[in-house]
Amino acid sequence: MFKAIIDVNLLKDSIESLSVLVDEARFRISPEGIAVRAVDPANVAMVSFDLPASAFDEFEADDSEIGMDLSKVTDILSVIDKKENIMMELDEMSQKILLKIGGLSYTISLLDPSTIRAEPKIPQLDLPAKVVLNGMDLRKAVRAAEKISDHMILGVENDLFYMEAEGDTDSVRLNMTRDQLIDLKPGDARSLFSLDYLSDIAKPASKSNEVTLLLGQDFPLMINFAIPNSDGKVGYLLAPRIESD
Amino acid sequence: MFKAIIDVNLLKDSIESLSVLVDEARFRISPEGIAVRAVDPANVAMVSFDLPASAFDEFEADDSEIGMDLSKVTDILSVIDKKENIMMELDEMSQKILLKIGGLSYTISLLDPSTIRAEPKIPQLDLPAKVVLNGMDLRKAVRAAEKISDHMILGVENDLFYMEAEGDTDSVRLNMTRDQLIDLKPGDARSLFSLDYLSDIAKPASKSNEVTLLLGQDFPLMINFAIPNSDGKVGYLLAPRIESD
Amino acid sequence: MFKAIIDVNLLKDSIESLSVLVDEARFRISPEGIAVRAVDPANVAMVSFDLPASAFDEFEADDSEIGMDLSKVTDILSVIDKKENIMMELDEMSQKILLKIGGLSYTISLLDPSTIRAEPKIPQLDLPAKVVLNGMDLRKAVRAAEKISDHMILGVENDLFYMEAEGDTDSVRLNMTRDQLIDLKPGDARSLFSLDYLSDIAKPASKSNEVTLLLGQDFPLMINFAIPNSDGKVGYLLAPRIESD
Repeated sequence: MFKAIIDVNLLKDSIESLSVLVDEARFRISPEGIAVRAVDPANVAMVSFDLPASAFDEFEADDSEIGMDLSKVTDILSVIDKKENIMMELDEMSQKILLKIGGLSYTISLLDPSTIRAEPKIPQLDLPAKVVLNGMDLRKAVRAAEKISDHMILGVENDLFYMEAEGDTDSVRLNMTRDQLIDLKPGDARSLFSLDYLSDIAKPASKSNEVTLLLGQDFPLMINFAIPNSDGKVGYLLAPRIESD
Repeated sequence: MFKAIIDVNLLKDSIESLSVLVDEARFRISPEGIAVRAVDPANVAMVSFDLPASAFDEFEADDSEIGMDLSKVTDILSVIDKKENIMMELDEMSQKILLKIGGLSYTISLLDPSTIRAEPKIPQLDLPAKVVLNGMDLRKAVRAAEKISDHMILGVENDLFYMEAEGDTDSVRLNMTRDQLIDLKPGDARSLFSLDYLSDIAKPASKSNEVTLLLGQDFPLMINFAIPNSDGKVGYLLAPRIESD
Repeated sequence: MFKAIIDVNLLKDSIESLSVLVDEARFRISPEGIAVRAVDPANVAMVSFDLPASAFDEFEADDSEIGMDLSKVTDILSVIDKKENIMMELDEMSQKILLKIGGLSYTISLLDPSTIRAEPKIPQLDLPAKVVLNGMDLRKAVRAAEKISDHMILGVENDLFYMEAEGDTDSVRLNMTRDQLIDLKPGDARSLFSLDYLSDIAKPASKSNEVTLLLGQDFPLMINFAIPNSDGKVGYLLAPRIESD
């Protein structure tokens, strides 16, 4: 059993945080809320998504697992422009979910969860450096870097956090000092990442004014933030690329 | 002889109500106003358009018939962004129309009306059910249905008007009760229509806050509304599709 | 040596006024400011651009010449949306330019000026008619003409300035009398121009509320205006086309 009411924008933000990495996802539903752990098809990035029962206006659920085509849900939500609530109700027998929004009733077939890639095990990493910044600053650096290169370095040098990209002939760098950041825990950190992924992740992250980055030396990057206006949280783990120079 | 002055937005709305079905149209001009009767190339939908002399700021005309390339006029009007009046004057000798808008003078060649498909005879139908609703509600249901299917059912069940679409795996339905409608005359009505056409027609209809639907059982749909801010009116007749189930 | 600070929007407008004609440009830098003279690849139009030191917030320069890929700079500036200042500094040794905008530092490789087409000699023409009008009026006529034809005639007849375009079947004309213009010096003038070029030039010109046109009989057109909010100025010289009728 699963029946819940949620703000449409919160649902849109939740789905977007997943759909930047995967097209289909297994949603683990429990009385505590909804959780997703997924890895992108190329095994470069993982997402860990948790929306607790408290993020919903109403929430009632037993333990269950459902599979959803995220692009289908995104498409359906794209025609809802008003700030409305959406009612969701699972029909376990027919494996369909009922969505009610502003008079419209959608009946959506679920995917068999067993056909969707299994949940990855999110590795526990001990990353030495921590940076907390506004999501818009991350996105600004990513968008600037995309004009120059396919990759971007994120690093910490003493009390300075930097993001830099080097193209064939040009380069761009954003330095952020402690007073331009929300928080900084210095540590030995400099790693190269694919801008394709950073760009996808920076989009949902830019809506949060407090994004936490955990970094190491040629180590994966963790990007954590709260889903705006909710108790939900999302975390990405992005594998580093090897610096060729 | 034909010479008239009209608000640009009213002319844009008028042309749009025709161009959703046909690329070229015969305009029947008389001292009473302008009328168009046209059928789309696939013979699925007809439009009946009437703009009386009173909808114009100035209007002076003898009986005549002119042919116009609607996409050309739409294209020309697309660069006019200000709320201005447009002066139209027919030169019968050269079969050209002169348009004057904000200092610009256009001279547009007309089409020989005899090269444009003849006016259809609009059948008189006795449709049992009548629904009056806000054009935005119609468009909302159509846009939602397009995400699911190529066809949509419109029907009346006692005091309920419904629009529903069924895809291969998903479905959507909008129920509207008497108090959510402007008016409802119940009757035996349920018919299936092509969403391509409904979507085209819903676009101009969405600008009207009072759209009248006349419906029957596997019968054509009539969609009537006033052209906003005018005494003009437009009506569509849309053939039903056969329900396969 | 070259080091300067300038408003981002002013830099964007400056680059746009050049990039409508050429992809790469030689910038002549001197203690007095920056100047560009360039001709488009098809030899149809020339641009003469002057941004004096006074247009900058700070300006310090020796004589030098640098080559720049305008589309690269446009691309980089496209992600800057805030009204900020940009700091530019030339590194003559490495032939790179450093741009600092809102925390971002770009290092851009310059082009070898000798690989860019040499500066044209701008001919001194004695054009009999002069028209001063709002840039938006020029753009309105150009956009209207583009719907009808590939060419547009600009001319002066006594106290009337006109722009007209003739298509295969349709035509458009904008007449402007002395009181609709900022200034008019009548003279014998009527020439045909390519709308491709006029459209490109009308875009930056539309931001200026005082554009000066100098015209003759089957003679080139000069279009001069100040770069908005600056002491900078830009002038185009556009070759006429031969009227076939």
